[in-house]
Amino acid sequence: MSTQNSPSMLWRDATVFDGLQTLPQPMVVRVDGARITGLWPEAGFAPAQAEGCVEAGRGGLITPGLVDCHTHLVFGGSRADEFEQRLEGVSYAEIARAGGGILSTVRATRAASPDQLFDAALPRLQALVDDGATTVEIKSGYGLALADELKMLRIARRLGRPQEGGLPVRIVTTLLGAHALPPEFAGDADGYIDEVCARMIPAAAAEGLADAVDVFCEGIAFSPAQCERVFEAAQRHGLAIKAHAEQLSSLGGAALAARHGALSADHIEYLDEAGVQAMAAAGTVGVLLPGAFLTLRETQLPPVELLRRHGVPMALATDANPGSSPMFMPTLMLNLGCTLFRLTPREALAGMTAHGARALGLADSGRIAAGQRADLCVWQAGHSAELAYAVQPGRLRQRVFGGRITHDRFPEAR
Amino acid sequence: MSTQNSPSMLWRDATVFDGLQTLPQPMVVRVDGARITGLWPEAGFAPAQAEGCVEAGRGGLITPGLVDCHTHLVFGGSRADEFEQRLEGVSYAEIARAGGGILSTVRATRAASPDQLFDAALPRLQALVDDGATTVEIKSGYGLALADELKMLRIARRLGRPQEGGLPVRIVTTLLGAHALPPEFAGDADGYIDEVCARMIPAAAAEGLADAVDVFCEGIAFSPAQCERVFEAAQRHGLAIKAHAEQLSSLGGAALAARHGALSADHIEYLDEAGVQAMAAAGTVGVLLPGAFLTLRETQLPPVELLRRHGVPMALATDANPGSSPMFMPTLMLNLGCTLFRLTPREALAGMTAHGARALGLADSGRIAAGQRADLCVWQAGHSAELAYAVQPGRLRQRVFGGRITHDRFPEAR
Ligand SMILES: [Zn+2]
Ligand SMILES: [Zn+2]
Repeated sequence: MSTQNSPSMLWRDATVFDGLQTLPQPMVVRVDGARITGLWPEAGFAPAQAEGCVEAGRGGLITPGLVDCHTHLVFGGSRADEFEQRLEGVSYAEIARAGGGILSTVRATRAASPDQLFDAALPRLQALVDDGATTVEIKSGYGLALADELKMLRIARRLGRPQEGGLPVRIVTTLLGAHALPPEFAGDADGYIDEVCARMIPAAAAEGLADAVDVFCEGIAFSPAQCERVFEAAQRHGLAIKAHAEQLSSLGGAALAARHGALSADHIEYLDEAGVQAMAAAGTVGVLLPGAFLTLRETQLPPVELLRRHGVPMALATDANPGSSPMFMPTLMLNLGCTLFRLTPREALAGMTAHGARALGLADSGRIAAGQRADLCVWQAGHSAELAYAVQPGRLRQRVFGGRITHDRFPEAR
Repeated sequence: MSTQNSPSMLWRDATVFDGLQTLPQPMVVRVDGARITGLWPEAGFAPAQAEGCVEAGRGGLITPGLVDCHTHLVFGGSRADEFEQRLEGVSYAEIARAGGGILSTVRATRAASPDQLFDAALPRLQALVDDGATTVEIKSGYGLALADELKMLRIARRLGRPQEGGLPVRIVTTLLGAHALPPEFAGDADGYIDEVCARMIPAAAAEGLADAVDVFCEGIAFSPAQCERVFEAAQRHGLAIKAHAEQLSSLGGAALAARHGALSADHIEYLDEAGVQAMAAAGTVGVLLPGAFLTLRETQLPPVELLRRHGVPMALATDANPGSSPMFMPTLMLNLGCTLFRLTPREALAGMTAHGARALGLADSGRIAAGQRADLCVWQAGHSAELAYAVQPGRLRQRVFGGRITHDRFPEAR
């Protein structure tokens, strides 16, 4: 791994997946500073296009840097014990009686110092970065109290600041106060939603800690009416909204979110056609999370054919979290998106680039085009379908973040 | 990555999974030359145990080097196109008419030069090695003609020879001539089995190219009677036997293999209790392959509870191959073995260490004990269940192969 700072760079003779499709001929990509400034067919290459540039690479497959638009990367403790106990035959009820499940993560997250949470999250983020992620969304939601939710969001921000020990990656933060009911509000979900709306959202907005607000709309979490109150509070504070919706049942959370102009509705296995239409009308992205589907051994597939037919953009993300998707590998999701959800390789890759960026409201990222941020991955691959087809760590040849090469493998191969 | 040659090394205060279980207290591991020479509780550590040693590490989780006991790592071409076409709606029949499927891999493997096949396999093997594999079995089976099968086996051997451009990993080779019927023998499976028995097995044995002989016993491949002829020929030449059996239907291949003293029967989703009993009686290992189960979207689970009850050792492997399991990541199989097949994390890890080695007939590998080969992994983990629980590349802190440290990450963490 090397770190270079090259103001003007050129990649020659590369296969380019531009975020939506693989371009039909070998291409030249030019980067000046932190931006992509040129994308031309290799066949018509003119020396003037290379003026002032160093040649940074030749051949291979260039994609936008991967966008992991749905993670819960900051958390305390580990649920490996619980994973083991379940497989050794301990029942859910026994684990819950022993304090397991999401509330064990809440307890551990509250108990951890900011530095402890940061240190625990860093190798998880490093795994995403080393697999090609250049943008990672991180949700709060294991604090479930004002100070702890803000603590999580501050750590998420710090993870993207190399000068504070973080990594060269763009972090987008989401306040997920409405993730689960904290023990302090047992039996009073409406009271907790008051707390989210009246204190958490205003505080996160005032400190600039959250780019968006998310909710878990589900029988085991919060009702559509409660989620709607959260959306309205978020919008009063100028924050974008998202929803965990239709994961385990069909409550209409995705349609509700869409009617409020949500950036995305996520999971959506139980989404019906009316919900798909609402999302299409609002331009809300459907975020598919095959890691959770696999880990929970779900059988209800998201309505991919309906989403296609109605033109709803589909994003794909790790849902990296300690309970239902302890998976810290974006490229694995490309494979699982195809194998489990029957996405095409093109759809899967668009889901982790152009559509992932759209699910975060980022207009300057997720595509290869002049003017976009120079967040790129160069892969040791000839065909964009190979990334989804084979689960094979180590194919990332170069990673470029904001115009800087942060990873450089196989220089001899170029 | 560094390469050191340390004749005597000591790891202190480590959690040790010895191949079968996690030891209850922190341990000291000593290596002299290519062998493990000591394993003691840290609590009773005596300076004499460290005599002449450098301290190579402290803390973390030490496991035997991973054993991937079932791969088809050497092949020509790629099936990424076919993967994409299927997901874009092209039918199996159309793909077959266009020359797809296993016979496309056979054509590409036959057409490739030895160097081309070697160069194509090397990054796949590197991915396994970088994920902790120290022993990898590689099967032939895409040549399906004498010269091409031997070519594959020679390349497999070379992949384990660093002096010939290979990697520091122990390669075990298996002749899988009876993998599919080559076009030259269409309609004459018995004639092809004659060729396997009368020419391939003797030639591979004479050149010392195969450690074992494998068959694909299935309706779409070879019958039990044909497989039995292959077993008998292998045994006449002193070669161990293995079988792909009961993957898609129950033909009794695993019981047949067991009656012939097979090292392993692999896949075994459709294995019945009589087959389990036959394997138990013979000491035949059951090799579970969750990557193929996932990729093929199978629903019939292997009879894990019966295998447990009858004491059949269960191994776990990638089945890395271009068609049904393009997965080059052993630790992912730990997770999939638990999630899909309901193995416990302990069973999964034993399946890629002690039981994986047993499936290859290797008595000196797969366990941490005095006298065993010093093939070790040191992981950035506190609890052995974490390896199966989280899919997180990058946790391999050190990899030791034959007493030499080949990978060394996070030295600052020790
Ligand atoms: Zn989530
Ligand atoms: Zn196989």
